[in-house]
Amino acid sequence: MQAFMNADFLLPDESSRRLYHDYAAAMPILDYHCHLPPADIANDSRFKNIAHAWLGGDHYKWRAMRSNGVPEDDITGHEPDYNSFLAWARTVPRLIGNPLYHWTHLELQRYFGIYEPLSEKTAPKIWEACNAQIVTPEFGARTLLKRMNVRAVGTTDDPADTLEHHIAYTTARQPGDPVMTPSYRPDKALAIDDLLAWKTYLVKLGSAANVSIGSYRDLVTALDTRHSAFHDLGCRASDHGLIAPFATFTNGPALETLFTKLLNGTPPTPDESDAFKTAVLLDVGRMNARRGWVMQLHLAAIRNLNTPMFKRLGPDTGYDAVSDEKIARKLGAFMDALQSDGLLPKTILYSLNPGDLEVLGTVMGCFQDGSIPGKIQCGSAWWFNDHIEGMRRQMVSLGNLGLLSRFVGMLTDSRSFLSFPRHEYFRRILCALVGGWIEAGEIPADFETFGGMVQDISFRNAKNYFAIPGVE
Amino acid sequence: MQAFMNADFLLPDESSRRLYHDYAAAMPILDYHCHLPPADIANDSRFKNIAHAWLGGDHYKWRAMRSNGVPEDDITGHEPDYNSFLAWARTVPRLIGNPLYHWTHLELQRYFGIYEPLSEKTAPKIWEACNAQIVTPEFGARTLLKRMNVRAVGTTDDPADTLEHHIAYTTARQPGDPVMTPSYRPDKALAIDDLLAWKTYLVKLGSAANVSIGSYRDLVTALDTRHSAFHDLGCRASDHGLIAPFATFTNGPALETLFTKLLNGTPPTPDESDAFKTAVLLDVGRMNARRGWVMQLHLAAIRNLNTPMFKRLGPDTGYDAVSDEKIARKLGAFMDALQSDGLLPKTILYSLNPGDLEVLGTVMGCFQDGSIPGKIQCGSAWWFNDHIEGMRRQMVSLGNLGLLSRFVGMLTDSRSFLSFPRHEYFRRILCALVGGWIEAGEIPADFETFGGMVQDISFRNAKNYFAIPGVE
Amino acid sequence: MQAFMNADFLLPDESSRRLYHDYAAAMPILDYHCHLPPADIANDSRFKNIAHAWLGGDHYKWRAMRSNGVPEDDITGHEPDYNSFLAWARTVPRLIGNPLYHWTHLELQRYFGIYEPLSEKTAPKIWEACNAQIVTPEFGARTLLKRMNVRAVGTTDDPADTLEHHIAYTTARQPGDPVMTPSYRPDKALAIDDLLAWKTYLVKLGSAANVSIGSYRDLVTALDTRHSAFHDLGCRASDHGLIAPFATFTNGPALETLFTKLLNGTPPTPDESDAFKTAVLLDVGRMNARRGWVMQLHLAAIRNLNTPMFKRLGPDTGYDAVSDEKIARKLGAFMDALQSDGLLPKTILYSLNPGDLEVLGTVMGCFQDGSIPGKIQCGSAWWFNDHIEGMRRQMVSLGNLGLLSRFVGMLTDSRSFLSFPRHEYFRRILCALVGGWIEAGEIPADFETFGGMVQDISFRNAKNYFAIPGVE
Repeated sequence: MQAFMNADFLLPDESSRRLYHDYAAAMPILDYHCHLPPADIANDSRFKNIAHAWLGGDHYKWRAMRSNGVPEDDITGHEPDYNSFLAWARTVPRLIGNPLYHWTHLELQRYFGIYEPLSEKTAPKIWEACNAQIVTPEFGARTLLKRMNVRAVGTTDDPADTLEHHIAYTTARQPGDPVMTPSYRPDKALAIDDLLAWKTYLVKLGSAANVSIGSYRDLVTALDTRHSAFHDLGCRASDHGLIAPFATFTNGPALETLFTKLLNGTPPTPDESDAFKTAVLLDVGRMNARRGWVMQLHLAAIRNLNTPMFKRLGPDTGYDAVSDEKIARKLGAFMDALQSDGLLPKTILYSLNPGDLEVLGTVMGCFQDGSIPGKIQCGSAWWFNDHIEGMRRQMVSLGNLGLLSRFVGMLTDSRSFLSFPRHEYFRRILCALVGGWIEAGEIPADFETFGGMVQDISFRNAKNYFAIPGVE
Repeated sequence: MQAFMNADFLLPDESSRRLYHDYAAAMPILDYHCHLPPADIANDSRFKNIAHAWLGGDHYKWRAMRSNGVPEDDITGHEPDYNSFLAWARTVPRLIGNPLYHWTHLELQRYFGIYEPLSEKTAPKIWEACNAQIVTPEFGARTLLKRMNVRAVGTTDDPADTLEHHIAYTTARQPGDPVMTPSYRPDKALAIDDLLAWKTYLVKLGSAANVSIGSYRDLVTALDTRHSAFHDLGCRASDHGLIAPFATFTNGPALETLFTKLLNGTPPTPDESDAFKTAVLLDVGRMNARRGWVMQLHLAAIRNLNTPMFKRLGPDTGYDAVSDEKIARKLGAFMDALQSDGLLPKTILYSLNPGDLEVLGTVMGCFQDGSIPGKIQCGSAWWFNDHIEGMRRQMVSLGNLGLLSRFVGMLTDSRSFLSFPRHEYFRRILCALVGGWIEAGEIPADFETFGGMVQDISFRNAKNYFAIPGVE
Repeated sequence: MQAFMNADFLLPDESSRRLYHDYAAAMPILDYHCHLPPADIANDSRFKNIAHAWLGGDHYKWRAMRSNGVPEDDITGHEPDYNSFLAWARTVPRLIGNPLYHWTHLELQRYFGIYEPLSEKTAPKIWEACNAQIVTPEFGARTLLKRMNVRAVGTTDDPADTLEHHIAYTTARQPGDPVMTPSYRPDKALAIDDLLAWKTYLVKLGSAANVSIGSYRDLVTALDTRHSAFHDLGCRASDHGLIAPFATFTNGPALETLFTKLLNGTPPTPDESDAFKTAVLLDVGRMNARRGWVMQLHLAAIRNLNTPMFKRLGPDTGYDAVSDEKIARKLGAFMDALQSDGLLPKTILYSLNPGDLEVLGTVMGCFQDGSIPGKIQCGSAWWFNDHIEGMRRQMVSLGNLGLLSRFVGMLTDSRSFLSFPRHEYFRRILCALVGGWIEAGEIPADFETFGGMVQDISFRNAKNYFAIPGVE
C-alpha cells in the first residue's frame, strides 16, 4: 500500500517515477489558458484568509458543497469565513473519487506544507495554519505564480477590454516575473440572441477600436484593430465558447443586409443566427492565421441551466452542464472553409463531452498539413473532465488518433491562484501512462527519448506552439 | 491466481477485501426499484423447479440463449423444463465476459450452496441438486428475500392498480418480514400514441380514483388521488420510462383543448404529443415534491424493435435496445421548469446509454440545492449496463462529477426472486474501487471513515433518501 | 519490467501467455474483409523497396507524418524512396501510444526478423536490411500471405467489377495457396448524390450483368445477376459504407417513379434519397439472405473533409473522420423490415464511432433468432478504433451485451500485404482479456474450454460463419 499522496502519488511503478521525478517535475509551467484576474497579478494581491482564497469564486467547490447538502447561505450567502471553510472541510472527505479531493490536498501540501487530510476534525488547526501563512508576501498573487515555476499565463479577455492591467504589468515586469498575455475572446460579438446587449457591446467595442460600427465590415475592422492591439501585448491565441460549431456560409452582401437587420433590432432566424456567427468566427480565424495565432474552440458547454439561481447569482456560479449536440459535420465544414481559403490557423479543439474525443481526434487529423508538428491539437481534458480518468482518456485517445508526443499539454482554465498543482497532477498522470508502457514492454526503456517527450508535453511543445514573446 | 469466484471474488487487494468483509457484506438491502410480482411476495410463492425460477420470465437469459443459437422453441416455446435448463447450461460457459455468467454462479452459490460451474456436463447434477431444494419452504418468495437480508422492496405499479396485494401484505406483515411498497409508474397516462388504449386506460384510472376523467384537470385529479393512496401504502417514488426527456411547455387552456382533441380520437402532432407528456410529467413532479417523494427518470430505452417477435411474444421478451437521442437541453429545461416553480422533487436520473453519463452527472449538479445531500442522483448502472464495467464507469463518473459518497446505490430492477446477489456484486465492485484508491495512496487508509461511506452507499443513503416508513 | 515487444508482448500474466502461446498463436487466419488488390495476389507481385511497401498507399501513415510536421512533398509528392522512409523513421518514435508504433515493429519482427526500434538513427541500417529481403521471392504478395498462415482473404469489389483476377487466381490456385474471394460492395449503386456519375455507373453495371438498366427493377436484376456471379466465385459477404443507416420505406410504384426522375437527372429530395438507398439496401439484404451471405454494415465514417486535399489527391488519402449521427432507430427499423420479410441475413454491424457500441450491441440482440450462434455480430474495432483500447472496448462491450465466445473476430481492413500481424495483435489482446479473467478468478482456470473459445474467435467462428467454399 502506498502512503497517502506522498512523493510518488499517482506513480505506480519505477518507470513512471523516474519519468516524473527526473524529467517532468522540474519543467516550468506555461498556463496558456486561464481566467485569473489580470489586476491581481499586476498588483500582487493577497487574500484575507483561506476561505477567501478557496471559496471566494470557485464554483467547482460551490457545486460540491450544494451536492453535500450545504445551504446556499453558507456557500454564496455571505463573505467567506470560518463557517464556509468548515462547511467545505466537512465536504472534503465526502469527495473521494472527485478531483477536488486531490486538488485540495495538493494545494495544502505545495503552498502551505500541510500534509494532514482536511476534515471537520482537522478544520480548526488547518484554518489557523493556512491563515498564518496566507497574509505573508509569499502569498501575493504574482509570487504564488513564481513559486510554482510559472513562466507565463494567458488570461481571458474581451476584445473591448482596455488591457490596462496587462499594459501596466508588462511595462513594470521585472526579470524572473512570469509573462502575462491576454487571450482574445470575442464571444460577445457573436451574442445576437440578446440584441440589446449586443448593440451596447458594439458601442463599447467600437470605442476600444476607435471605429464606429455601422456595418459588418466595420465590425470586422474593429475586431481586427483590437486583434492587432492584443498581438502587440504578446497575445497569440483567440478563444471561443460554443455549444456546437457553426457552419452556415453566406456572402458579403447578405451579411451586410443581415447586420443592418440586427442593428435595427429584428431577431435573426436560426439560420441567420448561424450564418452571422459562422462569418464572425471565420473572420477571426483568418486574423489568427495571418498573425500566426492559435484558435481555441471550446465546444459543448450549456450555460446557466438553473433559471432561479441564474437570476440570483448570475453566470459562472456552478449551473453549467455538458451538451450532447452533434459536432462532426459542422466542425469539419467550418475548418474546411478556412482551409479552402488557405487561412486555417493553428487550432485547438476542446469538447466538454468526452464522447466527442473520437470525432475531434479524427477531424483534427484531416487538417494537419505538415507545416508544423501538431498544427491542429485536441485540447487537454477540461472543466468537468479535468480528472484522472478524463485526462487519461484524452491522452490515450490523442495517442491513438494523433501524436501524443506533439501535445501542447495542460492548462488550468482556473480562476484560482492556488490551482497550479493541477499541472503537477497532469504530469503525474502523463508519466504513469508512458511509464506503464515502458513497464509493459510496449515501448523501449529509452528514458532519454521518452523522458524528453514528457518534457515536451509538460512545457516545450506549448512554448514552441504558442511562441509567446519573452517565453523561453 | 485467485480461485474461481471465492470469498474474495472481485476484490483484488487487502483494502478492498477489508472494506467488503468488514463493512459492506453485513449491510441490509433496500431494493428500491424492482419488478417483482407483489402477489408472490404476499403469498410466499414457490417455484416448480429451477427452470421455472430461472427461465420462466427472464428475458436477459432468453436473449443470451437466442444469441447462442438456441431455437425459440426451447426458450419460450414451452413450459420451462429440463430441456430449457440444459439449453441454458450449454449457453453459460459461452457467456464469459457477460454478467449473466457471474449472476448464475452467485445464485448457485448463495441460494443453493453449489460451487461448481454450470455447463452441459454438470447440468444433470445441478438440476437435481437445485430442484431438491427449490421446493422447500426456504425457497418461498418472501423467505428468499429474508435470507438475503432484504429490508424493503419497491415494486413497480400502475396508478390504476388496486394494490390489493400490497394492502394484504402490509396488513398481515410480521416483524422481520421485509417492507413491500409500491412505486408509482404512470407511463400509460402518457401513452397517447395509441389513443384507443389510452382512453380505455383513462376509464380504468378514473375508476380506481373514483373520478370521471373528462378533462386534463380531471386526469391530474385522478393521478393525484392515486398518488395519495400510494403514499398511504408507503410509496415514496414515482418511476418513468422515457426514450428522451420532454420539454414542450404549454398553458392550462391549451392543454384542455388538446385533451378534448385527444379524447375525440384525433392523433396529436409531435409537438402536441410532447406538450401533453411534458405537462403530465410536470404535474407528477409537483405531486412528488409536495409529498416528499423521489422521481425516477429512466431514459434511452427503445422498446420492441423486432415486430414479428413482438406480435408473437408481446413486450418485455428481450427485444429492446439502447437509444441515442440527445437529452441534455430537454432534461435541463424540464428540471428547470420544476425548479422555477419551487417544486423540483428529489430526482434520480438514469440513462440506458452510458454515453449520457457526463450529461446526467452535470445536469444533476445544476439542480443540487443544499436542502439534502445528494438531492439529485445519477442512478446506478441499469439493465444493459448492469455489469462490472458499467457499474464501475457509473461510479467513477459520479465520483468525478458529483458525490459518490452520497450515492443511493444499487437496485435490481429485476423480475426474479433469485437476483439479490446483484447487490453483493455491486458492493464488491464498489469496495474494489474505494479499496484501490486506498492501496494507491489516493485516499488515506482511514477504514472507519471510508468503510462507513461504503455502508452508506450499500444501504443507509437509500434508507435516508427514500425515507420509507418502517425501514430502519 | 517486460522487455520491449518480446514473445510475451501484451500478455501480462501466466494465464494470458498460456492462452496465446498454446491456443491462439498457431491458428490460421481468415481475413474476411480487406482491401488488398486482387491482381497482386494473382501475380504474386513484389515491392521495389520498403518505402514502396510501407508508404505507397497507406494513408494511416500519411496522416501520422502530416501530424508530425512532414511536408506533403515527402509524403505523397514523389515516388516513395529513402527520403520518405527517413521521414517515416523520424516519425515512428513520436508515435508512442499509437497502434502504428506497434504495427511497424511487429512487421519488422515478423516479416524481416528485425528487432531494433525504428528511429532516425536506425533508419539507414533498417533500410538496407529490409530492402535486401524485400526483393526476394519470400516477399511475393501471395507468399507473404502463406508465411502468415492466411487461409483466405476477402477482397472488396464492386458489383460491376469483372473479377478477372479472382477468376484467374481461382482457376490456377495450387493446394496450400490461400483462398481469395471477392466481397460485394454496391456503394456506387446508391450514390445518387452525383447523378451523372451514378448514370455512368449504371451503364457499367448493366454491361457487367448483361442487363439494360431502365427501371428500378432492372437495377435489382442487374445487382442480383452480379450477386450470383460473385457467389459462384466463393463470395459470401456484401459490404456497405454508410454514414448512418437508412430507413425510409416506400413501395414499388413510387420507387419506379423516383428511379425515372433520377435517370432524368432531377436531384432527389433528402427523403427521396433515403427512400432509394433504403430500397437498394433492403434488396441486397434479401439477396444476402437467399444465398446465405453475410451483410456487413460499416457506419459512421465521413469522407473527404478537406476539400483542397481531396481535389489534389482524391479519396482514401487520409482525410476521413468519425461521424456522430444518431443510428439506433433507423438501424433497428432497417433490420426489422428485413426481419418482417423473413429475410434478415447474417449481419455484422460496425461503427467507426465507439460511442455507438452499446447501441450496436443491443440492437444486435433484438435480431438474434436462434438459427445459428451469433447470427448478428458486432464487428471488430475498425480503422480509427483498431488499437489496444478500441479492440478491448469492443470485446468487453460484446461480452457484456452479447456472446464474445461467438465473435467472428479480427479483420485487417487493410490495403497492405504487411498488415497481417494485426491478427496477432488482436489475439494477444483477446488472450490478455480472457487470461485476466482467469487470473482474477472471474472464470475457472479451465484452459481446455476457454483456450478453445480463444481458438474459435481467432479462426473457427469466422470459418463457420462465412462458410467460404474451400476454407477448412
